[in-house]
Amino acid sequence: MGDLLSLELARIAQEIDSRFDALLTPPDDSRRTLYEAMRHAAIGGGKRLRPLLVCGAARLFAVDPECALRAGVAVEAIHVYSLVHDDLPAMDDDDMRRGRPTVHKAFDEATAILVGDAFQALAFEILAAPATHGDPFVRAELVAALAAASGPAGMVGGQAMDMAAVALMHDLATISRLQQLKTGALIGFSIEAGAILGKVPPEGRTRLRGYAHDLGLAFQIADDLLDAEGDPVAMGKAAGKDDAAGKATFVSLLGIDRARAQARLLSEQAIEHLGNFGHEADLLREIAAYAVDRDR
Amino acid sequence: MGDLLSLELARIAQEIDSRFDALLTPPDDSRRTLYEAMRHAAIGGGKRLRPLLVCGAARLFAVDPECALRAGVAVEAIHVYSLVHDDLPAMDDDDMRRGRPTVHKAFDEATAILVGDAFQALAFEILAAPATHGDPFVRAELVAALAAASGPAGMVGGQAMDMAAVALMHDLATISRLQQLKTGALIGFSIEAGAILGKVPPEGRTRLRGYAHDLGLAFQIADDLLDAEGDPVAMGKAAGKDDAAGKATFVSLLGIDRARAQARLLSEQAIEHLGNFGHEADLLREIAAYAVDRDR
Repeated sequence: MGDLLSLELARIAQEIDSRFDALLTPPDDSRRTLYEAMRHAAIGGGKRLRPLLVCGAARLFAVDPECALRAGVAVEAIHVYSLVHDDLPAMDDDDMRRGRPTVHKAFDEATAILVGDAFQALAFEILAAPATHGDPFVRAELVAALAAASGPAGMVGGQAMDMAAVALMHDLATISRLQQLKTGALIGFSIEAGAILGKVPPEGRTRLRGYAHDLGLAFQIADDLLDAEGDPVAMGKAAGKDDAAGKATFVSLLGIDRARAQARLLSEQAIEHLGNFGHEADLLREIAAYAVDRDR
Repeated sequence: MGDLLSLELARIAQEIDSRFDALLTPPDDSRRTLYEAMRHAAIGGGKRLRPLLVCGAARLFAVDPECALRAGVAVEAIHVYSLVHDDLPAMDDDDMRRGRPTVHKAFDEATAILVGDAFQALAFEILAAPATHGDPFVRAELVAALAAASGPAGMVGGQAMDMAAVALMHDLATISRLQQLKTGALIGFSIEAGAILGKVPPEGRTRLRGYAHDLGLAFQIADDLLDAEGDPVAMGKAAGKDDAAGKATFVSLLGIDRARAQARLLSEQAIEHLGNFGHEADLLREIAAYAVDRDR
């Protein structure tokens, strides 16, 4: 990992923790448990890849870092909600996440459902607030983009396809599509948020979308490789889940060696999309290299 | 029920159904089940009280009815998501809703979790879209207000208090506060949305907030009365749930007669807040009277 990236990963981890800490002050009434469960889910741990992508993309257009950070907290809130709901017994039924008990294990199922619901609302509240950007058009565009990326035509749709995938046999094209929705849409939003904050019109975002597309797939293949081969201690969660669930993944369809080669190719392609940017794109370049060369 | 209200209730029911029908066209892939479950949850049935409140409040400020209707669909999407998640086995564990099997009964729990998540995203996507209002400031304000009303400091916080209420003994002040969050916040948003769409500044919304506050409590007390005395067939769901769950409600704390008197008083107070408006406020007046005199 490059020096720039390790510095930035440490910085964003600290920033996101401190933002969630400030946002989630438990009130002095019986909502306290909800807030404590939200803190359990959101503070301490997590790569914070999505906020880092927002900051990395925002840097290309000289966006105020504070604006980028707020948009980063919003996308991380969506990510946290999706993990809490994914871990529920009716979904993936996971006991451990980020090296700690999942929310429904540490608290209970009803609390975990509400925690996810609350984080989704929090994400949109943050994006719509004047502090995120002075221009209301930018705020409304951020909300519309995140809602589209996370809703039934995006992340949630991908999760629904993933559930169906256990029953159906899927080919590579279908798995690619599924993953583009399930994890790619939110990664796509993270990059797009930088462009929205920088007031780059949609027609100026083609290369960034190429970067996000290739990075998202590379990242997911790397995740499948970690699930197949990774160290549960480093990952802070169980490994071998996909295989046990009988899910088709890039690894089950391609085999380990071809999956790894494909991830590297996609990472290189992602970096090529940034060709016309200078040093301001170095963070995004290092993220693309790191995405396929990580242990959690 | 007044002629105006019965006409408007029929009209809004048809409008909301047709909007959800158009928004939820099942795609031709394995997300189909998710969309079908969303249609099951959202189309056909429901009083559509919240959209009607948006339209009623928007009428006070001569807002384009199409804008009001879109905001109404958004708040109904939040309401639908909250019902689907509330009905889950880990929450209220209800089998019937609006005279039909609940989503987790008709489909499964994982689908019901995703359906709720998807409706929340859909709500914010609708509000942030240019079609909802030409002024992005209005759209951003709608999103911020709905997110605050539905999140941990609003509806979801109220649900968390409600869960805790089974364990704790609550007094009238606490139950009022709980209900103001659990159901009052979304009713408050519905009224506020009319003012936001009408570009009424916050300092001009005092009387409307009074109306929303009194209506919200009156509506909830009437709900408690229906739970205690109502006809499960008319309601389309089980009755006597609160008592069976050992929950403190307005009825258990006040008794039936005082609860009914209190609901009527609040309904009259709500109407008084509209004193300075003319016939354009008749719909809101009739809704306040209907809130405490309904069978479902």
